[in-house]
Amino acid sequence: MLSELRAVLGDRLDTSPDALEIVRSDRSGYVSAGAPLGIVHAESVEDVQATLRWAHAHRVPVVTRGAGTGLAGAATAGPGEIVLSTARMTRIHEINDVDLLAVIEPGIINADLNAVLAEHGLWFAPDPASRAISTVGGNIATNAGGLLCAKYGVTREAVLALDVVLADGSLISMGHRSVKGVTGLDLTALMVGSEGLLGVIVGATVRLRRAVPGPVHTIAAYFPSVRDAAEASVAIGRAGLTPAIMELLDATCLATVHAHLGRPTPPLGQSQLVLRTDGPDAREAAEAALGILRAHGATAELAATEREGEDLLIVRRAMHPALETLGYPLIEDVSVPRSKLAEMFDAIAAVSERFDIPIPTLSHAGDGNLHPNLIVDGPEVPERVWEAAHALFQACLELGGTLSGEHGIGVLKQRWLAEELGETQHELQKRIKLAFDPLNILNPGKVFARS
Amino acid sequence: MLSELRAVLGDRLDTSPDALEIVRSDRSGYVSAGAPLGIVHAESVEDVQATLRWAHAHRVPVVTRGAGTGLAGAATAGPGEIVLSTARMTRIHEINDVDLLAVIEPGIINADLNAVLAEHGLWFAPDPASRAISTVGGNIATNAGGLLCAKYGVTREAVLALDVVLADGSLISMGHRSVKGVTGLDLTALMVGSEGLLGVIVGATVRLRRAVPGPVHTIAAYFPSVRDAAEASVAIGRAGLTPAIMELLDATCLATVHAHLGRPTPPLGQSQLVLRTDGPDAREAAEAALGILRAHGATAELAATEREGEDLLIVRRAMHPALETLGYPLIEDVSVPRSKLAEMFDAIAAVSERFDIPIPTLSHAGDGNLHPNLIVDGPEVPERVWEAAHALFQACLELGGTLSGEHGIGVLKQRWLAEELGETQHELQKRIKLAFDPLNILNPGKVFARS
Repeated sequence: MLSELRAVLGDRLDTSPDALEIVRSDRSGYVSAGAPLGIVHAESVEDVQATLRWAHAHRVPVVTRGAGTGLAGAATAGPGEIVLSTARMTRIHEINDVDLLAVIEPGIINADLNAVLAEHGLWFAPDPASRAISTVGGNIATNAGGLLCAKYGVTREAVLALDVVLADGSLISMGHRSVKGVTGLDLTALMVGSEGLLGVIVGATVRLRRAVPGPVHTIAAYFPSVRDAAEASVAIGRAGLTPAIMELLDATCLATVHAHLGRPTPPLGQSQLVLRTDGPDAREAAEAALGILRAHGATAELAATEREGEDLLIVRRAMHPALETLGYPLIEDVSVPRSKLAEMFDAIAAVSERFDIPIPTLSHAGDGNLHPNLIVDGPEVPERVWEAAHALFQACLELGGTLSGEHGIGVLKQRWLAEELGETQHELQKRIKLAFDPLNILNPGKVFARS
Repeated sequence: MLSELRAVLGDRLDTSPDALEIVRSDRSGYVSAGAPLGIVHAESVEDVQATLRWAHAHRVPVVTRGAGTGLAGAATAGPGEIVLSTARMTRIHEINDVDLLAVIEPGIINADLNAVLAEHGLWFAPDPASRAISTVGGNIATNAGGLLCAKYGVTREAVLALDVVLADGSLISMGHRSVKGVTGLDLTALMVGSEGLLGVIVGATVRLRRAVPGPVHTIAAYFPSVRDAAEASVAIGRAGLTPAIMELLDATCLATVHAHLGRPTPPLGQSQLVLRTDGPDAREAAEAALGILRAHGATAELAATEREGEDLLIVRRAMHPALETLGYPLIEDVSVPRSKLAEMFDAIAAVSERFDIPIPTLSHAGDGNLHPNLIVDGPEVPERVWEAAHALFQACLELGGTLSGEHGIGVLKQRWLAEELGETQHELQKRIKLAFDPLNILNPGKVFARS
């Protein structure tokens, strides 16, 4: 069966054991039951179409994959499946500084695209913490969030149009090059965050912004408790300030990342809130924020230079590797309305105590997204830890939140999906999946549990 | 059959001939073939569910309707259909100034919601020209645009969560109260702009913004030709300026609205660009814009007072009634990438000449959306006018545009839908409709032509 595909793709079909081993997992730590059949390294739309025509004819499940940096297991592949990698499709077809858009292939790395755009004074705003290693196609397929969403939106707001290869190999173009467009159902928005279930993104027209002019100002604020830090972040919003970035590290996160980077040990229990303001009122906003933070009990300083400000964000961006020094972090991704941030931190503390599991937590405090990291011994997650995760999700739903703010469902969260959606919506979503993919060959068993 | 429904709804089921006559049309001028069976004036979610359960059992087509201000005929009803009006569902359940959201019923008028929000220093950004008379539910069902979209986004970006009654009467909740959320497929985004095909919106959690502080500045610029005005608007964007509003009136529009309002007749051929800047750098941006406009040959002045600035926008907002003095305006709604604005004006002029039809045109120049108004004698649109519209759409598609920027497809544009989507996507969209509504009772014959 594979020989047919090899006849078309030649050495772009990879069946080397080392490569197959890698695609069994992603950054979530999940490892599939075994190696897939092969990996197609697509270099063109035609390669993608040929692969899907073959897979459709033989009913072979297809797992689309970019850089494999997902945190929910959506791009992992197992026995009998074929991996369709778009990582080699990295071309930029157009950068348009009047229409503020770029036409790109899906495999380009977010940071690489932004490096090119910066030469034009332009910027693709989606800013997942993985931006140096994740593809834009993957950002779109997961509706990636990141640090800037409260002010600059999530990935969905930055996607104007998509070229998509459907399960049977046909190619369609959805969306618009224009700012506005309401011609039929908004399939572009539906594709964003669809985790490989509906089609394969082979091209994207993404919305750009002009680089925000002027200096940015960065503040580090230290609080005696994480609750104080959370409440201060709410007060910042209530005062009408919208920092570009507002990141919260609880005491364990802060101590761990300082140790990892060889920086001084912070005082016991100290939490950190890092804010960045930008735009024409960046300075005034930073000074107003300083006043609010201090009134909430913080020791807070404005970074003296932009370099010092960048340095503060290096701490935040080093969080993931730092946490791995504690054990194996199962990174959760709950999101609550901003006003419930302090209550969610309380709930996390209660779960940590009840299940006796360390749960260092960081948060995109500007938008209410929290990453509780359940620290376990290895990638085999014991049932007790899943029970703790379940308790976290329930607390989050009770606070009006959602069980995934930006990582998606993949394989790791599917057992809780129906609980949040309700059975009727869960069934509706599965029918929509089948409207795109009647044979269910696109990433089956992801998001929706195998029935 | 209706007696069953009356037993449940009492006088909330309206079968008076005058009422039935009204719902045969909307603001598009389209009039259906005859009166529908009745109108349900739903006052609660239960009323909507009861109506759909009844309609589902008897396979009666249901046309959901808000204020009936649509411009494409999507909310018009004909023989054998039942109208489900949500216009009486006007409650505001919650206004939350920390989480920046409101929980509302669909029938509330956009301007009424904003009047209440203004007391809290808050604001629902979607700003269709119909905001004084259109419902928020209708704004959502059409993904309404308006004047502020280049800076503040379209309606989709302002919808966090929806309560939706499905075709069989079941109620589901989709979306999130949090800023971020990627739990399953993004059905909330899919519902926005779905023109009554997929379900009935009975509740919405909408995203609010804080009122933008500080004064706004408004500029009126006059150009000897519409092409100059269009090119100046592009230069504004290229200079990195993003006015909150940038509206272009061609010479016929300007002369007509001035006559309608009893203002002085502008010089022959003169077009107008009105810009408004807001936010912390409003004054600097306005002064920079003035310089650019004058360099492009405009006579341009900054309004001396906010009142004078408001007065300039009154001219713009009076456009629709003013055009009715010329005849019956078939309002088109093409949208092109901003860089193609001048070329689209050229194309409109060519079509006007070729078909000998006056086509006064206004444009949301900041986002590339144009409203060419094909002036005809009455609501019976002659085939020659449709041919002219067809020529406009083709020119628009050739420029990378779309045939509807903000009004939708409804009945008036469905004959061109497949041309833009392509046959494969057109069929896919119909399958998605059936995944929501297997019996095809929700607004059949709208968007997708009856097959």
